[in-house]
Amino acid sequence: MSLLVVGSVALDSVETPFGRIENALGGSAVYFGVAGSLLHPVQMVGVVGRDYPMAELQRLAKRGLDLRGVTVADGESFRWAGKYGFDLSTRDTLETRLGVFANFRPVIPPEFRDAEYVFLGNIDPELQLEVLEQVHQPKMVACDTMNYWIQGKRTALMKLLERVDTLLVNDSEVRELSGDWHIHRAARWVLNHGPKHVVVKKGEHGAVLVEKDRIFYAPAFPLVVMVDPTGAGDSFAGGFMAHLARTGDLSDANLRLAMVYGSAMGSFAVERFSVGRFEEITLADVVARVRAHYDLVHFDLEPAASDAGRV
Amino acid sequence: MSLLVVGSVALDSVETPFGRIENALGGSAVYFGVAGSLLHPVQMVGVVGRDYPMAELQRLAKRGLDLRGVTVADGESFRWAGKYGFDLSTRDTLETRLGVFANFRPVIPPEFRDAEYVFLGNIDPELQLEVLEQVHQPKMVACDTMNYWIQGKRTALMKLLERVDTLLVNDSEVRELSGDWHIHRAARWVLNHGPKHVVVKKGEHGAVLVEKDRIFYAPAFPLVVMVDPTGAGDSFAGGFMAHLARTGDLSDANLRLAMVYGSAMGSFAVERFSVGRFEEITLADVVARVRAHYDLVHFDLEPAASDAGRV
Repeated sequence: MSLLVVGSVALDSVETPFGRIENALGGSAVYFGVAGSLLHPVQMVGVVGRDYPMAELQRLAKRGLDLRGVTVADGESFRWAGKYGFDLSTRDTLETRLGVFANFRPVIPPEFRDAEYVFLGNIDPELQLEVLEQVHQPKMVACDTMNYWIQGKRTALMKLLERVDTLLVNDSEVRELSGDWHIHRAARWVLNHGPKHVVVKKGEHGAVLVEKDRIFYAPAFPLVVMVDPTGAGDSFAGGFMAHLARTGDLSDANLRLAMVYGSAMGSFAVERFSVGRFEEITLADVVARVRAHYDLVHFDLEPAASDAGRV
Repeated sequence: MSLLVVGSVALDSVETPFGRIENALGGSAVYFGVAGSLLHPVQMVGVVGRDYPMAELQRLAKRGLDLRGVTVADGESFRWAGKYGFDLSTRDTLETRLGVFANFRPVIPPEFRDAEYVFLGNIDPELQLEVLEQVHQPKMVACDTMNYWIQGKRTALMKLLERVDTLLVNDSEVRELSGDWHIHRAARWVLNHGPKHVVVKKGEHGAVLVEKDRIFYAPAFPLVVMVDPTGAGDSFAGGFMAHLARTGDLSDANLRLAMVYGSAMGSFAVERFSVGRFEEITLADVVARVRAHYDLVHFDLEPAASDAGRV
């Protein structure tokens, strides 16, 4: 089933304790698209300036990223620069230059308007609502947001929530949105305002899927190599949504598996700067990590029964 | 199979954002014993002063805690006072008065010396070694320790590690012990110095079982009520060891289930001050929480196959 992402397409300059990179491919739509297209074709909508290295993006697109919705506008591309602390869990934003992203008004190409799975990356909720006016009858809509919109565009955000199936946010965002520090109560607050599913991303502490009657917890995969956490959340969203789109199955069981595909993609993202890791891996590597995640958490409620001969 | 714990028996005064309690039952052996005896009888060795409320301890012991190894000595009982911060993840020690615990030399009663499962609570590693001289042929020995001994009694601690099967510590302890900030590498360092299993407790972020070839991750159970984290780690150890002792099964599959019993006990511990929650619950409550943990993390690698008719 067709999968559409609308979000930022940026150039990131990042410094971590393990190195630095300048003007590398970044932005929510890029991480989502590059990760997601390992599983399923992704249609991307965004805007870049004339300075954007489109050849690089096109090289990454060969795996199934449809760039017909990426507009090239007069002006500079969106640039973000940040520096991470020792443990990679805190970061300072050094620079944000919106460039052409400041005037971004998403236009969904006619050939993308039948998209059945839609991910609204972290942009102004008024623009997220404009996207929903342009797509015809999506089977499932998910969105991200951030503290800036929670504070500045709350009315539009609450209107958006009524129209989305799934909210994917990080722990500080769901706390700020709900006004409740307790993450599970905060997620339930969101469930009372529209979405059927809330995914709370907690970085190195994993992610939680909260539904009306059930909670599913996916720990972050234990990594030996951690280089740059930028884009892990959007890569998570890419894996989550692409798994749903390729299976067309919104059962609780499949949403859980989608969480694990999301978690796998998030873990790959942090192993290199920018989207570098996704260029090195194939679907087989993703499936292997999903199986490793299975082994990481699974246990048998009655192991003695299965081991009866040995005990 | 018989289960022995040696550790502190204390009176705790605790203040958290949710209230305070004075001179309540505490100490590693108490939390371990009260939690563990919900699953399996526990033999306890420790020392108290003449001021200890033995009647309270005896009331709790009715479920299967054998107190014949608890010595009453002249002097004051070990007292600890602490205050927790807003999010319950940091605490200040306000007072530590060792009292009779300062001269504690564990004497294992003859009727406990055949113990097959032994837990050495957090005491001087030289005393932990003395316990091992007194028990005959344990099937499995686990120990805890703390930063104080890692810094001050490293030689004895390393000697102890060669003789234990399982080390249960928290994340900061395994980092300090190994000199490696990366928890999984730190745990592997420990595996190279004696133990076959390392359990790293990460508080609200769960616990990890690290073995030579496998890792198992048990998230902390998502709680609505959190009152006092004191003793959660020792309660974890009580559930972990008591499950192993009652099943007599040290297979990898059963160690995983033991982690979940440990996690369940740790989660109950934080729901009330002192050991209060364990007085309210029965084995059925523990099993229900273990099943809830199963539902929290389990997923199917091929849900579409099982849901094939519906997709």
